[in-house]
Amino acid sequence: VVSQSGLFAGVFSRGGVDTSDGAWLQAMLDTEAALARALERAGLAGRGAGEAVTALAQAAAFDAAEIGRLAAQTGNPVPALVRALTSRVPGEAAAAVHMGATSQDVMDTAAMLLARRALGQVAGDLSAAADATARLAERHRDTIMIGRTLLQQAVPVTFGLVAAGWLAGLEAARAQITEVAENGLAVQYGGAAGTLAAMGDVGPQVVALLAEELGLAAPLLPWHTDRQRVLRVAAACAAAAAILGKIARDVTLLAQSEVGEVAEGNPVAVAEVHPAEVAEANPAQPDGRDGGGRGGSSAMPHKHNPVGAIAVLGCTKQVPGLVASLMAAAEQEHQRAAGAWHAEWEPYGAVLRLTGSAACWAAEMLAGLQVDQARMRAHLDAARGLPMAEAVASLLAPALGSVAAHDLIAEAAAAAAARGQSLRAALLESEQVAGRLDAAGISPGQVEAALDPANYLGAAGHFVDAALAAHRKRAEG
Amino acid sequence: VVSQSGLFAGVFSRGGVDTSDGAWLQAMLDTEAALARALERAGLAGRGAGEAVTALAQAAAFDAAEIGRLAAQTGNPVPALVRALTSRVPGEAAAAVHMGATSQDVMDTAAMLLARRALGQVAGDLSAAADATARLAERHRDTIMIGRTLLQQAVPVTFGLVAAGWLAGLEAARAQITEVAENGLAVQYGGAAGTLAAMGDVGPQVVALLAEELGLAAPLLPWHTDRQRVLRVAAACAAAAAILGKIARDVTLLAQSEVGEVAEGNPVAVAEVHPAEVAEANPAQPDGRDGGGRGGSSAMPHKHNPVGAIAVLGCTKQVPGLVASLMAAAEQEHQRAAGAWHAEWEPYGAVLRLTGSAACWAAEMLAGLQVDQARMRAHLDAARGLPMAEAVASLLAPALGSVAAHDLIAEAAAAAAARGQSLRAALLESEQVAGRLDAAGISPGQVEAALDPANYLGAAGHFVDAALAAHRKRAEG
Amino acid sequence: VVSQSGLFAGVFSRGGVDTSDGAWLQAMLDTEAALARALERAGLAGRGAGEAVTALAQAAAFDAAEIGRLAAQTGNPVPALVRALTSRVPGEAAAAVHMGATSQDVMDTAAMLLARRALGQVAGDLSAAADATARLAERHRDTIMIGRTLLQQAVPVTFGLVAAGWLAGLEAARAQITEVAENGLAVQYGGAAGTLAAMGDVGPQVVALLAEELGLAAPLLPWHTDRQRVLRVAAACAAAAAILGKIARDVTLLAQSEVGEVAEGNPVAVAEVHPAEVAEANPAQPDGRDGGGRGGSSAMPHKHNPVGAIAVLGCTKQVPGLVASLMAAAEQEHQRAAGAWHAEWEPYGAVLRLTGSAACWAAEMLAGLQVDQARMRAHLDAARGLPMAEAVASLLAPALGSVAAHDLIAEAAAAAAARGQSLRAALLESEQVAGRLDAAGISPGQVEAALDPANYLGAAGHFVDAALAAHRKRAEG
Amino acid sequence: VVSQSGLFAGVFSRGGVDTSDGAWLQAMLDTEAALARALERAGLAGRGAGEAVTALAQAAAFDAAEIGRLAAQTGNPVPALVRALTSRVPGEAAAAVHMGATSQDVMDTAAMLLARRALGQVAGDLSAAADATARLAERHRDTIMIGRTLLQQAVPVTFGLVAAGWLAGLEAARAQITEVAENGLAVQYGGAAGTLAAMGDVGPQVVALLAEELGLAAPLLPWHTDRQRVLRVAAACAAAAAILGKIARDVTLLAQSEVGEVAEGNPVAVAEVHPAEVAEANPAQPDGRDGGGRGGSSAMPHKHNPVGAIAVLGCTKQVPGLVASLMAAAEQEHQRAAGAWHAEWEPYGAVLRLTGSAACWAAEMLAGLQVDQARMRAHLDAARGLPMAEAVASLLAPALGSVAAHDLIAEAAAAAAARGQSLRAALLESEQVAGRLDAAGISPGQVEAALDPANYLGAAGHFVDAALAAHRKRAEG
Repeated sequence: VVSQSGLFAGVFSRGGVDTSDGAWLQAMLDTEAALARALERAGLAGRGAGEAVTALAQAAAFDAAEIGRLAAQTGNPVPALVRALTSRVPGEAAAAVHMGATSQDVMDTAAMLLARRALGQVAGDLSAAADATARLAERHRDTIMIGRTLLQQAVPVTFGLVAAGWLAGLEAARAQITEVAENGLAVQYGGAAGTLAAMGDVGPQVVALLAEELGLAAPLLPWHTDRQRVLRVAAACAAAAAILGKIARDVTLLAQSEVGEVAEGNPVAVAEVHPAEVAEANPAQPDGRDGGGRGGSSAMPHKHNPVGAIAVLGCTKQVPGLVASLMAAAEQEHQRAAGAWHAEWEPYGAVLRLTGSAACWAAEMLAGLQVDQARMRAHLDAARGLPMAEAVASLLAPALGSVAAHDLIAEAAAAAAARGQSLRAALLESEQVAGRLDAAGISPGQVEAALDPANYLGAAGHFVDAALAAHRKRAEG
Repeated sequence: VVSQSGLFAGVFSRGGVDTSDGAWLQAMLDTEAALARALERAGLAGRGAGEAVTALAQAAAFDAAEIGRLAAQTGNPVPALVRALTSRVPGEAAAAVHMGATSQDVMDTAAMLLARRALGQVAGDLSAAADATARLAERHRDTIMIGRTLLQQAVPVTFGLVAAGWLAGLEAARAQITEVAENGLAVQYGGAAGTLAAMGDVGPQVVALLAEELGLAAPLLPWHTDRQRVLRVAAACAAAAAILGKIARDVTLLAQSEVGEVAEGNPVAVAEVHPAEVAEANPAQPDGRDGGGRGGSSAMPHKHNPVGAIAVLGCTKQVPGLVASLMAAAEQEHQRAAGAWHAEWEPYGAVLRLTGSAACWAAEMLAGLQVDQARMRAHLDAARGLPMAEAVASLLAPALGSVAAHDLIAEAAAAAAARGQSLRAALLESEQVAGRLDAAGISPGQVEAALDPANYLGAAGHFVDAALAAHRKRAEG
Repeated sequence: VVSQSGLFAGVFSRGGVDTSDGAWLQAMLDTEAALARALERAGLAGRGAGEAVTALAQAAAFDAAEIGRLAAQTGNPVPALVRALTSRVPGEAAAAVHMGATSQDVMDTAAMLLARRALGQVAGDLSAAADATARLAERHRDTIMIGRTLLQQAVPVTFGLVAAGWLAGLEAARAQITEVAENGLAVQYGGAAGTLAAMGDVGPQVVALLAEELGLAAPLLPWHTDRQRVLRVAAACAAAAAILGKIARDVTLLAQSEVGEVAEGNPVAVAEVHPAEVAEANPAQPDGRDGGGRGGSSAMPHKHNPVGAIAVLGCTKQVPGLVASLMAAAEQEHQRAAGAWHAEWEPYGAVLRLTGSAACWAAEMLAGLQVDQARMRAHLDAARGLPMAEAVASLLAPALGSVAAHDLIAEAAAAAAARGQSLRAALLESEQVAGRLDAAGISPGQVEAALDPANYLGAAGHFVDAALAAHRKRAEG
Repeated sequence: VVSQSGLFAGVFSRGGVDTSDGAWLQAMLDTEAALARALERAGLAGRGAGEAVTALAQAAAFDAAEIGRLAAQTGNPVPALVRALTSRVPGEAAAAVHMGATSQDVMDTAAMLLARRALGQVAGDLSAAADATARLAERHRDTIMIGRTLLQQAVPVTFGLVAAGWLAGLEAARAQITEVAENGLAVQYGGAAGTLAAMGDVGPQVVALLAEELGLAAPLLPWHTDRQRVLRVAAACAAAAAILGKIARDVTLLAQSEVGEVAEGNPVAVAEVHPAEVAEANPAQPDGRDGGGRGGSSAMPHKHNPVGAIAVLGCTKQVPGLVASLMAAAEQEHQRAAGAWHAEWEPYGAVLRLTGSAACWAAEMLAGLQVDQARMRAHLDAARGLPMAEAVASLLAPALGSVAAHDLIAEAAAAAAARGQSLRAALLESEQVAGRLDAAGISPGQVEAALDPANYLGAAGHFVDAALAAHRKRAEG
């Protein structure tokens, strides 16, 4: 059996999505087995044929490498697999193998099965990620931090709102994944050119039974060269990858040494090997100590690499190009495409695998995310009130007129910036300004209140509550 | 006003989808106007403010080029537009312009409006294409032709089945487009960092009113850096482009000089200019005749270029790369992305425009498609019965055993191929073979029947009927 | 050891390009070994250290799956590999392992080695493909066929010219591949942040020695986050994939049942499994006969699937999306990217592998390509002279004026088309037309000559000769 | 005339690259004019024909929108342009227009001309960017800052080294752009199917003259369906976009509020419109003051949006998807592709335009980049010596053995981290540690030296000098 392993598997194949050769083989064999059962139910194969084929349809018993080698003869692995399977099925049951089917029927139906399994895993990991994010949103509903636009500090937000945005995104992605898994997948059974001619009149009946056996939809008609089902799977994965990548990008930015507002909870690794580590690994000092679980370089003790978020990005950044390949390959000729169909198999599996790996990494990373409220507060304080300029201007506008209010604040802000002073100081400790405020009937206390970020959060709490309520409703329902 | 015109517009901007500068401007202005009305309804703007802004929000009155030039100052065109709009709004109503909003609120909401208008056009053209295709499927339900797999003749199908496959694909694409247009679009209104802080407590109320004014959904929370809505629009377009491209590819192949089973109905153009045309165009011979409407070269009188299908492909082949750009750009930082957001505008508009152009071209092309049943029949006949080998083998298998049946047919087919004979002749005019058939109790009449493609169409008619029924149900419902 | 095998390897991993886990491991180990030798040469490692490390740097001795599993700890496989390698190196030589290096130094240098080996293979297969194509061009220098534009028959060309176009394209691709292999690859050795701080003053010296050991260029400075070298490799592969895909598309089209002007020389397979094949595979009939080598279905005896060309397309169609991933991933932050670097490994390997597989398939396919001159001639004849309309018009123009000449031909062509007549008949057998020609002093012999495609080939032969001469010059020089 | 303007032009069409309709038209007209001159030189057109056509070949005199509308008839704009041009050329010279050519000859040659002009602009802007970067590298050769890997502080580098990395990347991109501009562009002139049949024997001579007239290379043979030239242009642009995007990403990160080590020199804009700005724009206060040139919000006085870098990213992020479209479209059939050729025009122009805009933005941005050495130093200091752990361990290793040295430093670093102490304090102010150092013969002065980042820069200066020298050599040579 071929399993999901390999040099890069730790990063790009984490979690339960299996698109290995073994998984493909099993999905192909499951298709053949279901077809045998369907044929038996339709009276087209002898009693017991379904069971006989099903019992033998175990990927572990087949040699993927040999089948892969033989695939060069025909351009796809199905003929070799069918021959290998048929040769094992005893007696008349052998006739039930692949009856009426063409290679693409098996590949396409297997692809749908692969997707159903993979999307189920992805949905599960997205749920876990959403649960973890909901906990963050709840706990930090009122944790104030500076909002950042265009990578510049802007006005205050809460970390709860940040997490709620992630949460709503994860739920949307999960909904699309689930929708496709439940309604977007269909069996393929059309025979040589989509007429099921070899089956006489009973083709559609077998389609229905096959769909029932596999728990997939029965299509209106064979869809060999209408690849929208493939694209729906890909698009759902791309949407999930989009929100996962966005979250991971935020985490890497918030975890920057200079920001430090979040950190991954697991001791995270330094992705470099340093001389000392090499020395440690020397057999003369066989204890092989390194700085602990995932991460923690003893050579660069200040580094806390967000390995989880980095791995998410390593996965998600591969998805758009692969999806483009699938979209371009959807222009398929006549009743079976010469090349475009073949070009789907690798990117299709990769999209599922990478989305699954990213979702798994993200669920773990979010579950362990550590939030540093003090750093968040410190960044706000370090901004010396300037992010509140807008809020103070709003306070002054009714009394002064918006232009005069704006001008006064702009002058104070410029003065504060020039002197390294706080906006508060520039407003309240300048006699001239204080006089103007006083004349306008605005008290220092009102100014202080307007300078308090906690008073300038608008609907942040409302939005957090809305996202949490929607999450709970979905999770419970 | 900027309109959808230009050197390549005839090919890539056909039909009703408008993503020109004027359309963007109007969508942005519609957003501002709707916001003013929402603010008035919420009591946050004076009576008449909504109407005042709405009356002035006419794209034709603004200078897109100047706004575009100023966009370099801020990185997006909204500030310049807001200034221009505000400067025209008299009195207090001016305060209702852009209140509480940030540039991205306007761009994102405008993008949603653009999509709703464009997707409506696309759905209409897909419907028209589906109607035309349904007529083809109905008329040619039983028109036999050779099916082609891997660009080789395989077994018989009907043109009705081919058209039914197109039809089902067009309906699926239309359903996805409509689903996104109806449920996938939402207003954006979050202010500087998504809290609507400047609106105090009433932000969510304004969101709801704004959504109502525009007929878009109100989101759970601002989605500035969760770009799944953009991706859903893109994915729906990509699915439509996929099936349109598939159909167009089929048409170009079926219209090949050597195949000639279909032709575009409009006199189609030769894409080249020939010396004679140039000569004609000479002012000395000012009549400027060319071979008629779209197409018809007098210099290459045998050419019938399928210009419509070619234009479809010229559009659809651009879509996957653009969608990949949008997917890659979905990794957006914090509360507003530095670059990734900006990178969306051009590909987003292009995806809508190209999908719209392809749908429009396809609807026209399918409406005029001419089907040459005689050529279809001739290709079947020219295959000398060999595509029916499988059918005859099925006839013989019960009597001879499948292997012996298969061997007999294989020998006959090889003999036929070697002598340039028909399979019928190899089976019925060879004494030896005829003897074996006779011994097996198989009559020449049975063999003739098995050689008749009309008897080997399986569920083709069933599938056509199913696709037509689904189309009718949707079209009527 | 992990080898290049698997369920789809027969199609997508043909030929000598090895990007398996084993190949990556070996390239990484080769880098470490070369570094040890360089360090020894620089006096920074003890005598024999280079040899000691080199002797142990055998991929087969390492467990790629285990290293892959551990890669999840750090985000890349290098630390685990370095530990495993170091633990095996006896005594002081261990200190020479990975000295001064960071993980990315090893991954990047290994990627360059992988490319050099892969590009060498690709260049070899492109040469073989070019040789085969040159033979075709030479043999068919004057084999007339119809040229096809927009998938419509246009005017005559020669198959020699078609092949010469392929040849020039293959040579251009080969030149770009070779240029990159020779001048585009450089070692990476910069340490933790690109300063080689741990090496004191001798870093640049070690870079130079390392480059010498590996036969790669020494860069001006470490290029950890300047990914243009990666993109040059990818672009060269994409160019090769482009011409290979173009050739394969031509072959699939020329091999269509209705065209049949070329066929793949190896008996080609039917990509479907048919009932009879299944029956054959039954153990009761263990001879397992199928229609011969690659292809030849006994169930569809008329099919000659161009499996080679299809496999080429199955490979090449995957390349653009993967290259887009690499291009998008080139936006890498600071001194090491958080995710974008990681996102390169899989698509980089895949681009090399798929280009290699496509080149190998193409070389075989072109070497065996069978050309059917009779079918080519038959298609020309079947066009009844209409493709020569332009040529005849040119003949008449001097005497009649180009507009009158054009009109006369257009009328004759229309008449011919209407009556299913040849253009020759319409011109020479119509009394009225013949009279006009006679009056213009144009003899029937001249018309006949103008109708002969062999007289309307322009510079075709010249172009063939030019492409062949350039090929010979390169092959010899 | 159509010019490069529009709603998004300020961001995406900055600088001198012109791919507007007018530029395409002019390139097409230049091709026709050069052909007329070549024909005259070859004796195939009357004396003065070249001059006559050239004089009339002014894009401004043609109606791009009308030509674009007519393009729908034939699928490309050439026939309508040729008719319009021919109708203006007086007398016999008209016969020289488009003689022997096909539409694709004109489009492809125009595309090459467009590229030559655009690549020249790009090369110029890359040179300017390189010059500015070289000044930064020179000025800051020894300006120490913290290096950052995986978005975490790592070990010291210099800003000079950062700039030198940008410089080397810009020079590499420029070299590739120049190489393609000089050697990668060729005329296209092949006629209806690439034989130049209409030209009799003189076709190749006209090709050579045409190439000479236009300053482009003459190809071995017509390359209508070998699109590697298009891909070379695209790949060179993608490489430039890659390094420009990398630099811009670095700038946005270094300019983050919390980092602040660089800032764009021009007062940069806030990309949002704020209430106060709207108020200002009110006609009642018509002075329309805003915070100055590019940037400077009075509402968010602390924001310094790096608009230049953001615009670069807005451009460069669009390139990979467009290049993938071109690569996928390179699979072109026979002698002219049905759709794939057409699909090139828009992405081809967009790739040139966006690369040009990015290069222009980058050159300006880099020329004005402000470097805050104090902030750089402050970040280093704030790291409390921990980035120097590796350096101190190296100091101790000879005396203590590398493992013991490593352990001692790891303990000290952990202690420092736990107590918020500096590594220096943990090493020199702990009696126990000081004792061990003393026993090992290591003086406090040596430890202080090892803790000085200036002593741990390895080859940084060397690398800066190498990059500067290469730049100077290129710039002077």
